Amino acid sequence: MEESIKLEWEKFSKYLLKMSGYLEAISLLHWDLRTGAPRKGVEVRSGTLGMLSGELFRLETSEEMGAFTELFSRPEVMEQLSSVQNKIVKDCRKEYERSKSIPAERYEEYSKLSAHAQTIWEEAKENNDFASFEPFLSQIVAFKQEFIDYWGVKNTRYDTLLDMYEPDLTVTEVDAIFSRLRNRLVPLVEAISASPNKPDTSFLQQIFDKEQQQKFSLFILGQMGYDFEAGRLDESVHPFATGLSPGDVRITTHYLQDNLPSAVFSSLHEGGHALYEQNVSPDLVGTVLAGGTSMGIHESQSRLWENMIGRSLPFWERYYGDLQQHFPEQLANVELVDFYRAINSVGNSFIRTESDELTYNLHIIVRYEIEKLIFNEGLSVQELPEVWNAKYQQYLGITPPSDQLGVLQDVHWSGGDFGYFASYSLGNMYAAQMMHTLRKEMPELDELIAAGNLLPIKEWLTEKIHRHGRALTPAEIILEVTGEPLNPDYLADYLEAKYTELYKL
Amino acid sequence: MEESIKLEWEKFSKYLLKMSGYLEAISLLHWDLRTGAPRKGVEVRSGTLGMLSGELFRLETSEEMGAFTELFSRPEVMEQLSSVQNKIVKDCRKEYERSKSIPAERYEEYSKLSAHAQTIWEEAKENNDFASFEPFLSQIVAFKQEFIDYWGVKNTRYDTLLDMYEPDLTVTEVDAIFSRLRNRLVPLVEAISASPNKPDTSFLQQIFDKEQQQKFSLFILGQMGYDFEAGRLDESVHPFATGLSPGDVRITTHYLQDNLPSAVFSSLHEGGHALYEQNVSPDLVGTVLAGGTSMGIHESQSRLWENMIGRSLPFWERYYGDLQQHFPEQLANVELVDFYRAINSVGNSFIRTESDELTYNLHIIVRYEIEKLIFNEGLSVQELPEVWNAKYQQYLGITPPSDQLGVLQDVHWSGGDFGYFASYSLGNMYAAQMMHTLRKEMPELDELIAAGNLLPIKEWLTEKIHRHGRALTPAEIILEVTGEPLNPDYLADYLEAKYTELYKL
Repeated sequence: MEESIKLEWEKFSKYLLKMSGYLEAISLLHWDLRTGAPRKGVEVRSGTLGMLSGELFRLETSEEMGAFTELFSRPEVMEQLSSVQNKIVKDCRKEYERSKSIPAERYEEYSKLSAHAQTIWEEAKENNDFASFEPFLSQIVAFKQEFIDYWGVKNTRYDTLLDMYEPDLTVTEVDAIFSRLRNRLVPLVEAISASPNKPDTSFLQQIFDKEQQQKFSLFILGQMGYDFEAGRLDESVHPFATGLSPGDVRITTHYLQDNLPSAVFSSLHEGGHALYEQNVSPDLVGTVLAGGTSMGIHESQSRLWENMIGRSLPFWERYYGDLQQHFPEQLANVELVDFYRAINSVGNSFIRTESDELTYNLHIIVRYEIEKLIFNEGLSVQELPEVWNAKYQQYLGITPPSDQLGVLQDVHWSGGDFGYFASYSLGNMYAAQMMHTLRKEMPELDELIAAGNLLPIKEWLTEKIHRHGRALTPAEIILEVTGEPLNPDYLADYLEAKYTELYKL
Repeated sequence: MEESIKLEWEKFSKYLLKMSGYLEAISLLHWDLRTGAPRKGVEVRSGTLGMLSGELFRLETSEEMGAFTELFSRPEVMEQLSSVQNKIVKDCRKEYERSKSIPAERYEEYSKLSAHAQTIWEEAKENNDFASFEPFLSQIVAFKQEFIDYWGVKNTRYDTLLDMYEPDLTVTEVDAIFSRLRNRLVPLVEAISASPNKPDTSFLQQIFDKEQQQKFSLFILGQMGYDFEAGRLDESVHPFATGLSPGDVRITTHYLQDNLPSAVFSSLHEGGHALYEQNVSPDLVGTVLAGGTSMGIHESQSRLWENMIGRSLPFWERYYGDLQQHFPEQLANVELVDFYRAINSVGNSFIRTESDELTYNLHIIVRYEIEKLIFNEGLSVQELPEVWNAKYQQYLGITPPSDQLGVLQDVHWSGGDFGYFASYSLGNMYAAQMMHTLRKEMPELDELIAAGNLLPIKEWLTEKIHRHGRALTPAEIILEVTGEPLNPDYLADYLEAKYTELYKL
């Protein structure tokens, strides 16, 4: 590398490190808000979050960033850079071009609004009061519409949002993938509904001590290989994972007395996210590549642990005894196979996060379609509860009795995360395709799981996915790991096989 | 106010708000490090803290800040500003001028040195090895001597340092105050040593359940009027209070199985600090005035609650029953008066932080006199252990058997905090003087305390002290509240009366 380029790259590295410092501070301020910050500090905190996000935004869009990325994008310079360096430049350039179109004060205002709106949403959900949330959500949508114009409409307005979470994937592609998936899942769900072999879930309707739930969560996270010296487990209303740096990746879960599976599978889910962030290669720390490459790939890691491992029979062959020891009164007389069937019970529930891994995809399709309506067809926020309920009736055969169990259930929109939901279902599809490869490369997989030997799985995922961080794109990852592009049939195959057996179809 | 000045002030307010946002983020990052941040994230976190502190420093010393404060310091502008606005400008200008005077590269070198020296000090303390720390401390002193020249010598060189923590107080004044205090306390300590009426403290040498200690801490903080919707209580190795904003003032304590008083009085102490920060007037939020006016006045608030209320007989007349209920096994057979005497036991300990409220002041006077010798008389760092031990013998009648129990015990000097120690004793004096006034204005004070009616005390302190934040100077506060300048006799009177009775002198 030329000496002058080397010196510029050193300056650029320091600049990136500064950005990553802002991101760490912002993430901690958010984490703190969700895990126990005092109520009366929220207003000032919102301002601080807005200010710091504004500063980060300024760094992402500064003339200095423009000059750095312009220099490093010149063909004669690019060929002197490593592939990781080129990916850093490419991502920064994309962000720069996307963001510099938004006036800093508009972005700051938006950040303040969305921080505030999340608190409002929490209260609105608690009080089943959509009306109090609606003006905030309307403002957020208006901001997003404004931003889409700044960013530039891709194929449709909604494509622009989708691209932020799953780079390069288009509405046309997702439409095709989702319709293929829906066409295979809907008959399966109908067959299950008609099956007389329903699992007995009555034993789950007991009181499960919260402290024991916490102990079991901590135990199972340790078994997965979650590093407690590089993270911590807390409680929050809506479980989440947040990586401040690979040495500090925090997760939350929630403990509901009357819902044991919720805490267990939330912990496995967030643990899957956390393993991804904890195992990014140290070389990438302090750059923009030290995280998951897309929301979809991120979600594949959480779903793989939550469902494909965590709801498998081999997993509970090993861990059901431990669970029984945590809840002897409730589970001593419940057989393993009955437990396994119960936690895989398919039902048309109102709440996405409490739904089974099969109908889950239908919950996502509802949200995906509604978001498309908002941004491509001008659906108003006022109409959301009605449209929401109609779609639930259409796809799941149920109508939510309240907004709390309907349109108010998810945090995402309060934070402006439109375009995000599709990632959840994409994650399921990525995960099934990865599992298919893992199983080929590790034929003794079920035996390992049944022996509680989970670390080889973690290591395989680290080697194939985690360590790369954002250095590879989602399309590159899925192609390199599995040898083919995203294919919804792996998920459909997996679900058909699993549920045909479970429901004796 | 002229329109152009008004507009400039609005810009300045935004600028201050930004500074205050950085401070909130820095405070939370620190709080988090001390209350449970994962070990493996510490290195990245340190970098982030350094970066954000650097950004804040840049804001404090920018040309923009220079221009703002220059404009607002013009006589024709000053007369258009409120007294609060003028105080904001004065404080910002002082900080600006002080920081600007040091060449950036010298300050950077010093920051690196002091960060390093704190680690060296930790090891030196652990290994009882002053010699390994000495060269670092010598360099820190040399830097401080250099900085004093940059900052400008006030009356004496040490005055310049003292002023950073207790604005406007001079060495001449503190000398007079401390010598007067010392002359009254030394004979009192001697009389107590000779007294045959020593309290029995043996019942404190039991095991006290940590969870019960926590419950009692929470209870007693609630009684003081600490607002849990504007704060939270956590555990850390060294107890502290930190105000992120008046709506978010957090405290920590520590629970030691074999030391009940430590948690109880740490909670009261930090609770006293927290009441101050929680009750700053909302008008001052987001300015540089939204905190305590000096280290000494801050310490007066913690000491008042910890000692003058928390170690008083009326207080335990009300709360001892509650404490007994938390620890029936350990305290059921201990009489109130014996408990009261035990928690006020005077002993000549080597360690400042473990000393009683009487000898504590002598620990401080030793440090104050040594710091003065260093900066005004050229005492070398090599001589410190010898001088330290001689002064302990002179004032406390004991000679530390090791530097670990002597000159190496405190973190302050390793971080360059010379001039800070005096504040601790000034706090005791301010507190005693305030209590004297409070007692005059509220003659039924002891009855209120004995009835657990503590809120009138909190309200009085808020009205007289807390709400002003930094809008009044320490000298203005003590004069406005008590009608006279700081007078050490109130503390001496209080201690003489209390301990004469306790030890039947």
